[in-house]
Amino acid sequence: MRYRPLLSEASASFTHDVEVVDERGRRSTIAIPAERPLTVYVDKRELVTLMTLGGSPEALTLGYLRNQRLVGTIEDIASVQVDWAVDAVAVTTHNGIADVEQRTSKKVVTTGCGQGSVFGGLMDEVDQISLPPDARLCQSTVYKIVETIRTQQSIYKQAGSVHGCALFSGDGELLYFIEDVGRHNAVDAIAGKMWLDDMRGADKVFYTTGRLTSEMVIKGAQMGIPFLLSRSGTTQMGHMVAERVGMSLLARCTGKHFLLLTAHHRLEFEPHLLDAALKQV
Amino acid sequence: MRYRPLLSEASASFTHDVEVVDERGRRSTIAIPAERPLTVYVDKRELVTLMTLGGSPEALTLGYLRNQRLVGTIEDIASVQVDWAVDAVAVTTHNGIADVEQRTSKKVVTTGCGQGSVFGGLMDEVDQISLPPDARLCQSTVYKIVETIRTQQSIYKQAGSVHGCALFSGDGELLYFIEDVGRHNAVDAIAGKMWLDDMRGADKVFYTTGRLTSEMVIKGAQMGIPFLLSRSGTTQMGHMVAERVGMSLLARCTGKHFLLLTAHHRLEFEPHLLDAALKQV
Repeated sequence: MRYRPLLSEASASFTHDVEVVDERGRRSTIAIPAERPLTVYVDKRELVTLMTLGGSPEALTLGYLRNQRLVGTIEDIASVQVDWAVDAVAVTTHNGIADVEQRTSKKVVTTGCGQGSVFGGLMDEVDQISLPPDARLCQSTVYKIVETIRTQQSIYKQAGSVHGCALFSGDGELLYFIEDVGRHNAVDAIAGKMWLDDMRGADKVFYTTGRLTSEMVIKGAQMGIPFLLSRSGTTQMGHMVAERVGMSLLARCTGKHFLLLTAHHRLEFEPHLLDAALKQV
Repeated sequence: MRYRPLLSEASASFTHDVEVVDERGRRSTIAIPAERPLTVYVDKRELVTLMTLGGSPEALTLGYLRNQRLVGTIEDIASVQVDWAVDAVAVTTHNGIADVEQRTSKKVVTTGCGQGSVFGGLMDEVDQISLPPDARLCQSTVYKIVETIRTQQSIYKQAGSVHGCALFSGDGELLYFIEDVGRHNAVDAIAGKMWLDDMRGADKVFYTTGRLTSEMVIKGAQMGIPFLLSRSGTTQMGHMVAERVGMSLLARCTGKHFLLLTAHHRLEFEPHLLDAALKQV
């Protein structure tokens, strides 16, 4: 039976109603996304405070520890207990984090929306990452994923101002969908869920509503995922890292349109779809 | 004569061309925004690495030190020298930073796009901030600002994937416009320019293309600016902080539309403009 740490289930309320006045002086009430601090304690030691929507705090905490390379395997974690009464999560490990002082001392303030602090050394790891050379993605699967996201129930549609991330199987089945005020929280929460479910990335496709910046691409590569899709664009370092690890970046994914940026050989164009795409122009 | 530290002028290239393939297999070249690390050394001590577009690295460095409350006055800074050959900026202070270890030890990973790490204690300061109670903004000035941003030459229009921030005078004259891959870099660079020009915030209006999250609102309040406009939305903590300090948040500013979220009394509605707004519906 798969190992699972002891987890709380402390999902918090997603939205908050506020009164607004529009340009004509008309009052109304709108929903805005929650944003709350979550201070992470590991073995009673304060590590970091994450600003989060609060929808998946246990997975977020696990994914943060995983993506920061502070904990090596899920088996090292005994429990993750969130208590919104004090905006804190208590993580208990079996053996502690080695050299936690030294490993959390180096700060990189990144471009990412949301979880902007990556403790140093991530770029050093990039060259050790190898993505499956034979992984391919069909054009029809890209369209299936974009359509699934378009029709997905979301906090974004209710309240705006959140980023969404999703993990899909290689044939376009939605596995996880996470929204957060910070898109790096969303990607970390997905990394946490993959950890809990012992799910590999090699045959998966990652989708984000946010930009494909260096940190997003590095995190995707750390999860071993060869395909990273976004409705948004990329940056020079995001592009460079993807080329280095051989990850296929698809930007500006909307309707039938996309821009394939890197690892062009991984995408299998399907001529019969091109007519459909042409009709859209 | 106003004090100015010795500054390099090391603006870097803003965009980078990459080859892409679209959904019809057609190759073309597009521009994407630069994203590069800038490691900040203060008196030869490594402080942080910022991921930045690189357009205003000296102002960014100054604003970062100011907004993180690491340096109290511009007079404490002797020089800011950026060297892109090593992706580093060397800051020399006259008297050093007191307790820098202790003051940079607490991490808050925020919701902001870009500069996501705020060293602790910012919220503690919020209650000490007082914005001018009598500051008012005319509806016509809101429209002038939105139109100025709409017609502004920008990297966003060339390459997308950047955030813009701007500082306006109380009657809507553009004073500074900064873009960066991270919007918190953009706001920090504006804080740096205000510091260099000894410019107060009390009679100014701040505009951002990004969301009005807690960190953006806190930084606006730290700069003493009573008005914060965005084409985007807000979050619960951004709204809460703005209410606490009496800052007027205007979200969803596009064309003649906006949503006034907080400090409603600060906005002066102009009936003759309402007709224009109505015509747009």
